[in-house]
Amino acid sequence: MAIHEECGVFGIYDAAGNCAKSTYYGLYALQHRGQEQCGIAAVNNLELTCYKDSGLVGDVFSERVLNDLNGTMAIGHVRYSTTGGSRRENAQPLTLKYVKGSLAVAHNGNLVNTEDLKREYEYKGAIFHTTTDSEVIAYIIAQERLHSGSVEQAVKRAMSHLYGAYSLVVMSSRKLIAARDPWGFRPLCIGRRGDAIVFASESCALDSVGATFVRDVEPGEVVYVQNGELKSLKDSFGNQSNLCIFEYIYFARPDSIIDGQSVHDSRMLAGACLAEEYPVDADVVIGVPDSGLVAAKGYALASGIPFNDGFVKNRYVGRTFIKPDQASREMAVRLKLNPLRATVNGKRVVMIDDSVVRGTTSGQIIRLLREAGATEVHMLSSAPKFISPCYFGTDIPSRKELFACNHTTEEMRQIIGADSLGFLSVESLHKIAPNAKCGFCDACFTENYPIAVVDDDEGKCCG
Amino acid sequence: MAIHEECGVFGIYDAAGNCAKSTYYGLYALQHRGQEQCGIAAVNNLELTCYKDSGLVGDVFSERVLNDLNGTMAIGHVRYSTTGGSRRENAQPLTLKYVKGSLAVAHNGNLVNTEDLKREYEYKGAIFHTTTDSEVIAYIIAQERLHSGSVEQAVKRAMSHLYGAYSLVVMSSRKLIAARDPWGFRPLCIGRRGDAIVFASESCALDSVGATFVRDVEPGEVVYVQNGELKSLKDSFGNQSNLCIFEYIYFARPDSIIDGQSVHDSRMLAGACLAEEYPVDADVVIGVPDSGLVAAKGYALASGIPFNDGFVKNRYVGRTFIKPDQASREMAVRLKLNPLRATVNGKRVVMIDDSVVRGTTSGQIIRLLREAGATEVHMLSSAPKFISPCYFGTDIPSRKELFACNHTTEEMRQIIGADSLGFLSVESLHKIAPNAKCGFCDACFTENYPIAVVDDDEGKCCG
Amino acid sequence: MAIHEECGVFGIYDAAGNCAKSTYYGLYALQHRGQEQCGIAAVNNLELTCYKDSGLVGDVFSERVLNDLNGTMAIGHVRYSTTGGSRRENAQPLTLKYVKGSLAVAHNGNLVNTEDLKREYEYKGAIFHTTTDSEVIAYIIAQERLHSGSVEQAVKRAMSHLYGAYSLVVMSSRKLIAARDPWGFRPLCIGRRGDAIVFASESCALDSVGATFVRDVEPGEVVYVQNGELKSLKDSFGNQSNLCIFEYIYFARPDSIIDGQSVHDSRMLAGACLAEEYPVDADVVIGVPDSGLVAAKGYALASGIPFNDGFVKNRYVGRTFIKPDQASREMAVRLKLNPLRATVNGKRVVMIDDSVVRGTTSGQIIRLLREAGATEVHMLSSAPKFISPCYFGTDIPSRKELFACNHTTEEMRQIIGADSLGFLSVESLHKIAPNAKCGFCDACFTENYPIAVVDDDEGKCCG
Amino acid sequence: MAIHEECGVFGIYDAAGNCAKSTYYGLYALQHRGQEQCGIAAVNNLELTCYKDSGLVGDVFSERVLNDLNGTMAIGHVRYSTTGGSRRENAQPLTLKYVKGSLAVAHNGNLVNTEDLKREYEYKGAIFHTTTDSEVIAYIIAQERLHSGSVEQAVKRAMSHLYGAYSLVVMSSRKLIAARDPWGFRPLCIGRRGDAIVFASESCALDSVGATFVRDVEPGEVVYVQNGELKSLKDSFGNQSNLCIFEYIYFARPDSIIDGQSVHDSRMLAGACLAEEYPVDADVVIGVPDSGLVAAKGYALASGIPFNDGFVKNRYVGRTFIKPDQASREMAVRLKLNPLRATVNGKRVVMIDDSVVRGTTSGQIIRLLREAGATEVHMLSSAPKFISPCYFGTDIPSRKELFACNHTTEEMRQIIGADSLGFLSVESLHKIAPNAKCGFCDACFTENYPIAVVDDDEGKCCG
Repeated sequence: MAIHEECGVFGIYDAAGNCAKSTYYGLYALQHRGQEQCGIAAVNNLELTCYKDSGLVGDVFSERVLNDLNGTMAIGHVRYSTTGGSRRENAQPLTLKYVKGSLAVAHNGNLVNTEDLKREYEYKGAIFHTTTDSEVIAYIIAQERLHSGSVEQAVKRAMSHLYGAYSLVVMSSRKLIAARDPWGFRPLCIGRRGDAIVFASESCALDSVGATFVRDVEPGEVVYVQNGELKSLKDSFGNQSNLCIFEYIYFARPDSIIDGQSVHDSRMLAGACLAEEYPVDADVVIGVPDSGLVAAKGYALASGIPFNDGFVKNRYVGRTFIKPDQASREMAVRLKLNPLRATVNGKRVVMIDDSVVRGTTSGQIIRLLREAGATEVHMLSSAPKFISPCYFGTDIPSRKELFACNHTTEEMRQIIGADSLGFLSVESLHKIAPNAKCGFCDACFTENYPIAVVDDDEGKCCG
Repeated sequence: MAIHEECGVFGIYDAAGNCAKSTYYGLYALQHRGQEQCGIAAVNNLELTCYKDSGLVGDVFSERVLNDLNGTMAIGHVRYSTTGGSRRENAQPLTLKYVKGSLAVAHNGNLVNTEDLKREYEYKGAIFHTTTDSEVIAYIIAQERLHSGSVEQAVKRAMSHLYGAYSLVVMSSRKLIAARDPWGFRPLCIGRRGDAIVFASESCALDSVGATFVRDVEPGEVVYVQNGELKSLKDSFGNQSNLCIFEYIYFARPDSIIDGQSVHDSRMLAGACLAEEYPVDADVVIGVPDSGLVAAKGYALASGIPFNDGFVKNRYVGRTFIKPDQASREMAVRLKLNPLRATVNGKRVVMIDDSVVRGTTSGQIIRLLREAGATEVHMLSSAPKFISPCYFGTDIPSRKELFACNHTTEEMRQIIGADSLGFLSVESLHKIAPNAKCGFCDACFTENYPIAVVDDDEGKCCG
Repeated sequence: MAIHEECGVFGIYDAAGNCAKSTYYGLYALQHRGQEQCGIAAVNNLELTCYKDSGLVGDVFSERVLNDLNGTMAIGHVRYSTTGGSRRENAQPLTLKYVKGSLAVAHNGNLVNTEDLKREYEYKGAIFHTTTDSEVIAYIIAQERLHSGSVEQAVKRAMSHLYGAYSLVVMSSRKLIAARDPWGFRPLCIGRRGDAIVFASESCALDSVGATFVRDVEPGEVVYVQNGELKSLKDSFGNQSNLCIFEYIYFARPDSIIDGQSVHDSRMLAGACLAEEYPVDADVVIGVPDSGLVAAKGYALASGIPFNDGFVKNRYVGRTFIKPDQASREMAVRLKLNPLRATVNGKRVVMIDDSVVRGTTSGQIIRLLREAGATEVHMLSSAPKFISPCYFGTDIPSRKELFACNHTTEEMRQIIGADSLGFLSVESLHKIAPNAKCGFCDACFTENYPIAVVDDDEGKCCG
Repeated sequence: MAIHEECGVFGIYDAAGNCAKSTYYGLYALQHRGQEQCGIAAVNNLELTCYKDSGLVGDVFSERVLNDLNGTMAIGHVRYSTTGGSRRENAQPLTLKYVKGSLAVAHNGNLVNTEDLKREYEYKGAIFHTTTDSEVIAYIIAQERLHSGSVEQAVKRAMSHLYGAYSLVVMSSRKLIAARDPWGFRPLCIGRRGDAIVFASESCALDSVGATFVRDVEPGEVVYVQNGELKSLKDSFGNQSNLCIFEYIYFARPDSIIDGQSVHDSRMLAGACLAEEYPVDADVVIGVPDSGLVAAKGYALASGIPFNDGFVKNRYVGRTFIKPDQASREMAVRLKLNPLRATVNGKRVVMIDDSVVRGTTSGQIIRLLREAGATEVHMLSSAPKFISPCYFGTDIPSRKELFACNHTTEEMRQIIGADSLGFLSVESLHKIAPNAKCGFCDACFTENYPIAVVDDDEGKCCG
């Protein structure tokens, strides 16, 4: 299987120039989608250049590098890779040269037929330099360009070969293009800033460059900028629309609006649903920072139980952190999340986290709360139980490691030491995005994959 | 004037060893008190070694460095310097050798008589290598040691020379000592972990190493560890006790308890006081992350107006961030703080920040809220108006730059474009730490300096 | 035109393993051929991995990296690029994946038909990621492999497309291959260490890994290792053999033996030829370090005038050296090369340099010698006059900048301020490598290009 | 014992400014005297600033740092420390503040009474921050300044306390001072560039900044610049003058002239003396690069046997070089020094090195020569046998490790595998510097220490 990628993409066309710098700000806003590598490709006087490396946006790009890139078009990428392999060669955007000129491609998502495609094209003489989906995508676009009237047509034709999740930004020396897979797995939206046109994984990146939201790219749609005008190539047939619902629960930034639905509101609603499903007689509602906080506020609002800060999160604990040895593993958790005794001492606590995946951290946090004086700890997950792997770009452990695949809820409750434990039901899950103009992929919670996949994860889940 | 220093100190005695690593975790928990430099000195088999550099704790220390330091005693320091001069030579702990052996000193605070002391001792032949208070303090301790029976006595005698704010940790090859100035300006507390004894600027650092809070060091007190026992040298006369009240409002971590008062509770109370002083007919209460958030929750609780997240803060914007040019200064603010349209659109908003110092950022944030649809923005500061400089270690701009020194409240309101503007009153200020077993220094809000200072800040405040 | 490359290549097959480390030592010995980038690709259990970066061999590779590469086969590359563009993406070896598996390619030299080849293959659908010859070469080998019975056959077939200079090392997951262009422009030799087989640009790299010289790869020959045996594929027709004669004069290390001729002896002979062509009544012979020294010794031996050290070269002046401003440009030269007053004061000096290209440095050095007391300075160049560009990998400035293209010898002498000035004659040039079993390319001195080239260098030389 | 230091110092006074940059060039020329650390202190408008770090001059200083230092006076230092401890805190110049202002001190040499001085001053209340001689020297100068009329007088008085080797440059905010110990162990000279005055360890550093040699500082002399004038304070009594003779043989750069004697000539003479003492019937004379080369030329000239290059030295093997494992230790030598087969094959070789200390490398080199075909190898050392330690700054191993302390010459010859082995006799040693206006310290060859030292090196030499 190719390398899973949860990433962010950004693209901008602005005849006034300075596009690399705008992309830099856009990537800053998307940094939460990938912290391992980043890159920017820009077009200046029809010449395409690219700079990418391992590291955070703020560390990789200097003022000098941005000024060298400059340009009237640019695309950018932030990358997270599940293999831990932050091999520099795999950074995006990927750039190439072919008979029709230059191309740069950045994508978010995961194809399910990468290996088939590689084999197919290698038999026709294709040569690949990396192990990434992006190179396969770029290759197919370049191949299709030879038989198409335009790059956007080539992107459209290439899409008929690609199965899986992808939100693309593509740049030739003359055109900026964005495309979203026919299932709409990953978000992608369009914005405007004066005459400039912007594409981004999330609307928060539009805000970061002072652009206003225009609309989402539709599943299966190719949009592009020609002579400063925004144009579209659509499918004739209706697409299914299966946005990854975990974007609302965890991935996306709360200030983003995806397919019509505010992420912040969605998390508030998840909390409200939990309050309805799991009413608890408690004194205070707390959330596990950062992504459990909004759901906790939603629970508080719906239940009437006051919300308060349950933890202080140490913002400085990063990659270089030296972990304590075995004996004091819980101290490592406490360094990151210190309970606020003032909030929980002598209280019956409802604690909301965005998910319970392996259960290890949950157990440690609950112990910390009890040490800080909590008399009861009721743990609620604003995501349903994870029961099956994701083939579309979300990094979910194998069934062997998934807590809910190997234990009943009661077993899990005992293991983590909670007074009660609840997961958002799949029914409620479907209520958390009422404004979304799309359907969802919830396969990791339901095993209902919108595309046929070879489910190669060992071990059958107990559901 | 010597370099202002807002810092954090930590010290640990543990016969079981590994003290450098514990100090590392302690400094992680104190990192919010200083991000420019850090250092650890440790004693191993009576030999004292030290490692310090510019940078965050996580970047400066590697596993190898910590293992080399190791030790059964260690002290550590995190440093913020207002001069922007992160000169490596000024990093702490400061170490020296003299006839009685070795000493390491780390301190938090600011002396007001540094220059007098330097002159005085230089006339006696003293030679200084740096411009820091710490070297002066270390020098005087070493001098006094020549006429004292013990290092702790020398620290006690040295204190009679030092005017100003200081919380010290001192280490000889045999003893670990902590001392707090007679006014108690800066916090300093004692913890225990089994037989190990810990000193730290804030109790959150005790938590981070699994120690439990014992008590605060009293103003004017010297505490030390002798043969594993905690001992104390106290003044015969009662000390005034003037804890810097801004520790509660801004400096300290919410999970710390200082002189008996929970910082989190104190901020909640500040919010409640604001609600009483400035009742507003509004739809939502929001806080400016991170330090305005708790006060906003306090206001919400007291007023009954719902609290909600008003902004998403970008956690990745750091030192290397390349700021946009003049034209788009507000975009830089928005990159750090993006308003949550879902929360504020069409709403009358109460926005609480921890302080309004120069007014520039407040104006920009308010404009962002209005663009996001807020119909009214009522701005409240959980600190009173800053009207005079601090000589005890807080970095407050000169009166010329202080917003409240140059404008009436109404003028300020107009400049920042708020619908109303309020500051916590000095009367309310005195209510925010009801559990504190100490008095306060509030000179920056009142000009009532607990020590005679030469107020060399130009321009008389309008009050 | 593609990027010129003067580089060094190395390859080793050793069933005993540790091939990456051997390659590391080999590259150290070849470092003089390229200091901008370097890389090693290794095969371990049929898996091919690669590590490359900008920098010197000693800076790029750590023990950990070498251990990770390890392997029973490896190839390596050091690179110099005339564009100043040390773009990391262009570093070698180049690696790729295609239907038949993996390939790694490293080369030294410069093709003259790169652009034609790219166009030709792009029309057939080829896609290129870099602007380097190596990618084109690798691409063609991979393409030919589809219709060949083996990789070595594919290399052989690929060579029929390549015009220009190239010494290649190629590695598949099972085979190590080396090949030299039919003109034999660049050196390439074969060595043995026990059962291990080594390929290298120069024999000094064989010495560095303890291998003994076997023979040179013949022009147009492909050699490869199969099941530990060295095999060869040769052309049926005799090849011309045109080794770049500048390898003897400047590029190669004096301890290398190329095509049968010792580089050190060749330089001695050049000096002797100069002594015959330009007898001078002088007191001492000196050389400009480092590459002029041997020729100076040859001149001294032949003329009977004593050789002595004329300069001390500062070994620490490197890339990061901050040059003095305009006013004191000569001081910069003196920092690198300080005349030895003891040697030249009051003396008539013969000074030998490896070449006079632009004339600027020569003038400065002569002034330094006069300041140090030299009464006469006779300058001799152990290379003939440069009059035309090189298309085969040597970085020679355009005719506009070439001293000898724009001035008569007498004019040059006056400009640099020498008492006399002489260049090795082309006739003598042909005498400096009597043991070489090959012919030469001397086009930069004669305009006799062994291959038809489009001479696109502006300005006709005055000869 | 304090840390041994073989270093280089530089100082310049130039009313025209840019002194930091001149010092940078001066240190470049002195880099061979110390590669571990370097630093520059400069005075600008009476303010003294300093920048120092671990690393080579070219790596430590950037254009920005030099521009920040700037100044009308500057001193600089390059440092080698035998402890391997390149502790940043020990870098020089050392700067301090005392009642009379600021001081910066840089020194070359080693005191023999450091520990006594520290104890003496610590009893009077002194406090030291480092373990270096420089701090002790600076401290005593500052103390003496309190009772002296001027800094230069204070330096003079301080010198009466210091026993051992030291060449100092000292800078206050108004004065630049240089001083040399009464024995004249280490070199120190004076130069001029227009109105600018320069002090340097070696005359090659004067050349590097375009200054001309004026004279050496005399043993026991203090020279200083007052109002642009060069002044001197001399001892009334004659000083002994004991220049370290190893400066001529090894330390100094060949283009330096020390106390009247050219280093290059001195090495030529050493070679000539060897030719007289050890006539050999041989075909070629070679030197071990770099410091054995000149003596080899001297031997060749005197004996009539032709000199030739015997080795190619790899200039790229530096600090980061990863050494081969045990098995192939000789390969490591060969990587640095590859024999030139063309020179030695079938020849009877005289090989000259600057010294034979432990014998290990000599044995390896001789084996390499034999492998390269040398029929005889006669090894000669241009230094006499090392038989006792140095207490004045030269890093000589203890007697236990000294080859000549543990073996007869015949035993040594057998161990290293030479056909014959000879060392310069002590009698000849005294002939190698005929122009030197000074006496010498040759204690490492004779055990005649010019100062009483506590010879704490275990094991009595067999002489």
